[in-house]
Formats: sequence, C-alpha cells, structure tokens
Amino acid sequence: MQGKIINYFLNFKIPKMTQYAENENTSIPLGKEGLIAKISEGARSLNSETVFSIGDDAAVCDFSQSGKTIVSSDIFAEGIHFDLTYTPLKHLGYKVVIAGISDIYAMNAKPVQITVSLAVSNKVMQAHILEFYEGVHAACKEYNTDLIGGDLTTSKKGISIAVTAIGRAQEDELVYRSGAKPTDLICVTGDLGGAYMGLQLLEREKTIFNSNPEAQPELSGYDYILKRQLKPECPADLRDYFKKKDIKPTSMTDISNGLASEILSLCNASKMGCEIFQERIPVAEDTAKMAKEFNIDPVIAALNGGEDYELLFTIKLSDYEKIKNNDMFSVIGSVNALDKGRNIVMKDGSIITLEPSVNNQNFQNVQ
Amino acid sequence: MQGKIINYFLNFKIPKMTQYAENENTSIPLGKEGLIAKISEGARSLNSETVFSIGDDAAVCDFSQSGKTIVSSDIFAEGIHFDLTYTPLKHLGYKVVIAGISDIYAMNAKPVQITVSLAVSNKVMQAHILEFYEGVHAACKEYNTDLIGGDLTTSKKGISIAVTAIGRAQEDELVYRSGAKPTDLICVTGDLGGAYMGLQLLEREKTIFNSNPEAQPELSGYDYILKRQLKPECPADLRDYFKKKDIKPTSMTDISNGLASEILSLCNASKMGCEIFQERIPVAEDTAKMAKEFNIDPVIAALNGGEDYELLFTIKLSDYEKIKNNDMFSVIGSVNALDKGRNIVMKDGSIITLEPSVNNQNFQNVQ
Repeated sequence: MQGKIINYFLNFKIPKMTQYAENENTSIPLGKEGLIAKISEGARSLNSETVFSIGDDAAVCDFSQSGKTIVSSDIFAEGIHFDLTYTPLKHLGYKVVIAGISDIYAMNAKPVQITVSLAVSNKVMQAHILEFYEGVHAACKEYNTDLIGGDLTTSKKGISIAVTAIGRAQEDELVYRSGAKPTDLICVTGDLGGAYMGLQLLEREKTIFNSNPEAQPELSGYDYILKRQLKPECPADLRDYFKKKDIKPTSMTDISNGLASEILSLCNASKMGCEIFQERIPVAEDTAKMAKEFNIDPVIAALNGGEDYELLFTIKLSDYEKIKNNDMFSVIGSVNALDKGRNIVMKDGSIITLEPSVNNQNFQNVQ
Repeated sequence: MQGKIINYFLNFKIPKMTQYAENENTSIPLGKEGLIAKISEGARSLNSETVFSIGDDAAVCDFSQSGKTIVSSDIFAEGIHFDLTYTPLKHLGYKVVIAGISDIYAMNAKPVQITVSLAVSNKVMQAHILEFYEGVHAACKEYNTDLIGGDLTTSKKGISIAVTAIGRAQEDELVYRSGAKPTDLICVTGDLGGAYMGLQLLEREKTIFNSNPEAQPELSGYDYILKRQLKPECPADLRDYFKKKDIKPTSMTDISNGLASEILSLCNASKMGCEIFQERIPVAEDTAKMAKEFNIDPVIAALNGGEDYELLFTIKLSDYEKIKNNDMFSVIGSVNALDKGRNIVMKDGSIITLEPSVNNQNFQNVQ
C-alpha cells in the first residue's frame, strides 16, 4: 500500500520543482473567478453539515444536529514550513489539510469541513495552483472532509497557505489537553521521527542538487520516511477504537511539533509531571536506519523533530487491560505529580529532563 | 465621532512605521505559548456559541441553537494588501477583522466568532505582534465577535495574515448573490471610493517620505478618507433595518473590491444585466475633493477602488416605498434581463459597459 501510494502520488522529480522560482512570465488565463470555479469542481460536499459550499461571500453550514463544533486555524509560510524544491504542490495541498484536521482529531472530534486559502506570487502558474488544490481534494476525499471555502490572492514573494478545519463531536467525547492525572498512561499512535528524517534526507539531496542540478536525487529505498514527510496521514481510526473499547482519554494533543514539546504542553495544561521511557518511544526501522546514516540518535528525531501528525494522549491506568494488545499506539510512560518533574528515563538508566526543542522556543517550528 | 476616533486610534506617524523593516535583532521574550496566553487575555467570549476559546488544539463551539452557521476565510499578504510604512499594526489588526466579518454581513448574517492567524518574519518584535492583536481585539469588541483561535508562526519574509470569520443566521434570513431579478433596485450602503483615495494619499506621502525621511506627512484635513483606508467599518445595522422594515434583499455581496467587480459578480451569479446611474453612485465630499487633487474621476475611484466594505444588494421594486427616505443606503440602478447588458449611464447620457477592474482580472486586487 505504502509503495503504491508513493508510485502513484509522489512523482518525485526534484529538477521539476525549481521551475516555480524560475518562471517570470506567468498568467492566470482563467482569471480569479474561473480558477475558483475550477477548484470548486473538485470540492465535495458529502457531510450533512455543508449546506452551501464555494461560490458566494461565505459558506453556509448547519451544525444544529452535530453536537459541538470544533474549529482550528493554521498558517504556513514558504521557506519555513515547506520548501518547493522538493515538495510537489500536490503533496503540499495534501499535507496542509492533514495539518489542519490533525488538530480536530486531537480533540477526539471528527473533521467535517475545511477552508484552504492561498496567497501566491505571480511566479506561480495557474497549473501549479490547480495542482495544489488537487492535493487538497485528495486529502479531503481520504478523510471525508468537505472543502467549503478559502481565498485566492497574490503575494509579493513566496506562498502562504491558511487552513481552517472544522469538526464535530458530542460534548462527552471531547478531550482537552488539561485532564491528565497521576498514574495515567501516556500513549502515542504510530511511530515518531520519520517525517523529520525524511526532511533531513530531502535537505541533503537538495544541497547536492543545488551544486549540480543535473544530479538525480538518491531516494530509492527511503519510501517510508519520504512518505512520512511528504504525505503524512492522521490516525483517524483512533476515535472509533476508543468508542469500541469504551475508553475516554483523559488528555490529548497532536504531535505536530516534536514529542518533547507536546508532552510538555499536555503536562503544562494538566499541571502534571511525567516519566517517559526512552526505549518505549516508537521509532520505525527505516527512521532509525536513516538517523544512523546522519549520526543522529533516533530518539532525538522523535523528541525534537516534527510533522508526525500522530496523537499523544493519556488514559487511566485502569484501562490498561483494554488496550494492552492494541497495534495502533504504544504506552511510553506515565503521568506524575507536578513536583516529580518531567523526565525521560534513558536506556542506560540515566534520567534527562524534558525540554522543549530550541526551535519551538523561538517559534520557528515546523507547524 | 470620526475625528475623535482618528485622534485616539490612528496615532499616525510614518517614520515610526519603517522600524518594522529595520530592526534585525528582535526576540520574543514571552515565547510562543506566553505570547498566545497574552493575546488570549484580550480575547472575549461573550457569544453563547463560544464554549472553549484559545488554549487547546482547537476551539469548541455550540451552534445547536444558532440556525445556520456562516464561514468565510481570507488571506492577506504584506506588500499586496497592506504596507507597513503607513499602516500601524493596530489598524491592520482592526482592518483584517472588518474584512473577515464583512463577508458574514454580506450573507445578511451576524458575525459571532473569528480566528486570526499571523506569520511574521523575525524582524517583527513581540510588541508589534501584541499591537496587531490589540487592533483585532478592538474590532472584535466593536462588532461583538469572539476571537476563538488562530496561529502564530514565523515567515521567511514579510507578514501574512489569515482570518476565518464565523456568523449565524436563520435560514430564511440568508441572502446569496444569485437571487436578483429584473426590475429589482440595486443599492449600496454608505459611500464609495474613500478607502481608495485614502490609499492614494498615503502612497503619495510615502513617496515623499522615502525621498526625505525627515519630512512629516501632510495629512491634516484628510481624516475621512484616511479613516476609510485605515479604520474601515461594516454597516452592521443594515441587518436590523431589513428586519424592522420587513425587507429581504434578493441578492447581496460586500464591496471589498471595486463596485464594478461586485456588481458584475452579483449579475453573473444571478444571470442578470443591470443599469447603473453614475450620478447616483454615492461619493463623499472629501473623497471627491481628493480625487480632484489627483485628477481622478471620483466615479472611477468608486468603481475600481476597493476596501470600502460597504454592502451592495438588490431589493424588490415593490419595497421602494419602505426604503425611500432611508439614510443608510442609496439606490444606484436596477436589474435588467441578461441580454440588456451591464451598463452605466453617465451624467452626459452616454452609456459605458461595466468591466471588472484590470487589477481584479489578474487577482492582484486588494482583498
């Protein structure tokens, strides 16, 4: 499945990507309204919440039967959150939707709608804008989310993207960051650090490419980490799993920054401490392999990398029996009283205090 | 009132503004989370729809008793939509909220919530970010709208701002662009072209300032058009007026681009033609005076300028008796069958075909 998606969807050609910055004489033959009409052709309105979608001053929605409505906004800037040298616009479109709905899943809610706005310099051609929205449509389809609006405008330089994701949940389903209690188990879905190692690989190949634009990137065999970076997914099934097992997490957030920052964010909101075990932090084999090649400790990639879009949550210790053989998430530690600190127990038994990544402190973070 | 607002709020000092681009060694002492906490102190949650505001992965809202929910997103880029040389950040914050909720009023709905996201280069200081959100809070307060979220991140260069406004309306109140019928009266609130002439004035003073940074701008006596450009407002009372008079517009949109583009947009959506009378297009005295100084026909400023944030709507001819002495809006023409074209009757009796402004065709438009 993974390989298939990459072959079909990645179409990974670094040289092609640089055209975005070189083309000085572009135009939008369809005009703004024509372009919006073209984009809206690919938009779906399958959720009953969507009454009127793209095509007027605003979208019209009906949440009267939908319990609580969850709203989250993100903004992404070229050169900070993405690099068009190696990020095909279709992937970028896919990824910003994932980043948006990830915040909805982080509340234990279900995404239903999204708006995606784009400010592009006039170096970007109409075909590229449509390519971007193809990726948006693909992610919306995958996660049953309606594209209900957005904006399309010019920028002086570079691309800015803004996303507002809207979801629904019953009040008693909602999970905030603030509910963790001592002895709760700390869990993460999937595996971590892959997106970060994919980024390192792409950055390395970009450097080689920049010094010799004829060189083809060395990417074969790195499918998994490339997919983690260029076509991330959300653990959408977790919500159903909780329902089936009759579990309600006590706190939850998504792992869009590094695991360290996210754990601290849960601990801060819950006013708790924690103990994490290094050896339990899930890292995929391909991630570890790449980390070794770069001389990076894979755990550092998991703790300080970003963009994994997995979920971090806590559940009551008494729920352990229900979850112990699951294959969706790992228990990586437990919640402590605040005065016990926020620590990682390393494999050698040493204890390290959890710190937010330097990047996050300066809010230069990815996502 | 107008003069008072300017004295209190504008604080118009061009030299001060250029500091944004000159300061290379800025920092965010509060950190991202501290800054968000500081911003959220100024945020209000007065509408019953807001259950949980800033501080988690997403906001939680309750629209179960609110009829239909209206959603609109906008994105703004430095150098295209605003120029920090002469736009104080507080004003910018105010203005992007107005631009956002203007789309909600354009559906004949009431704004209730907004998210405002900001991507700023590290040349922008913490104090400037807080200033921007002061303006956001001021507009939210003025229009009884809750700031429920947003994003704060870095950009490579310049500022990008994204806004998602959320409103409510009963289904039978909603007005789309598409309902205009022949003989309907075409109306606009307030007056037009003022924001555009304010922009021309500021651009002129910027040129003088750039050639001689010691020169103080010549802005006295131009309060009205400066306010139109730097602190626009929405005709929020129109909705109540319609209710009181038992009028339902047949179509409506906001005038964020020039009047010409917006009329064409209504006509296209409604598949109609129209006849507009030049002499009925409302232009304020100060706007006309400035236009004369610039050798611009004031009607051109109204037709092709932008950012007036007035409302353009059509009502049934049979409602004319109800509205004829109103002081909120002007009747500027009427709807025709499609085959009669979209025309302006000039003062001298000549007829001109309505065209979208060149800017809008290339979507370089302001808003």
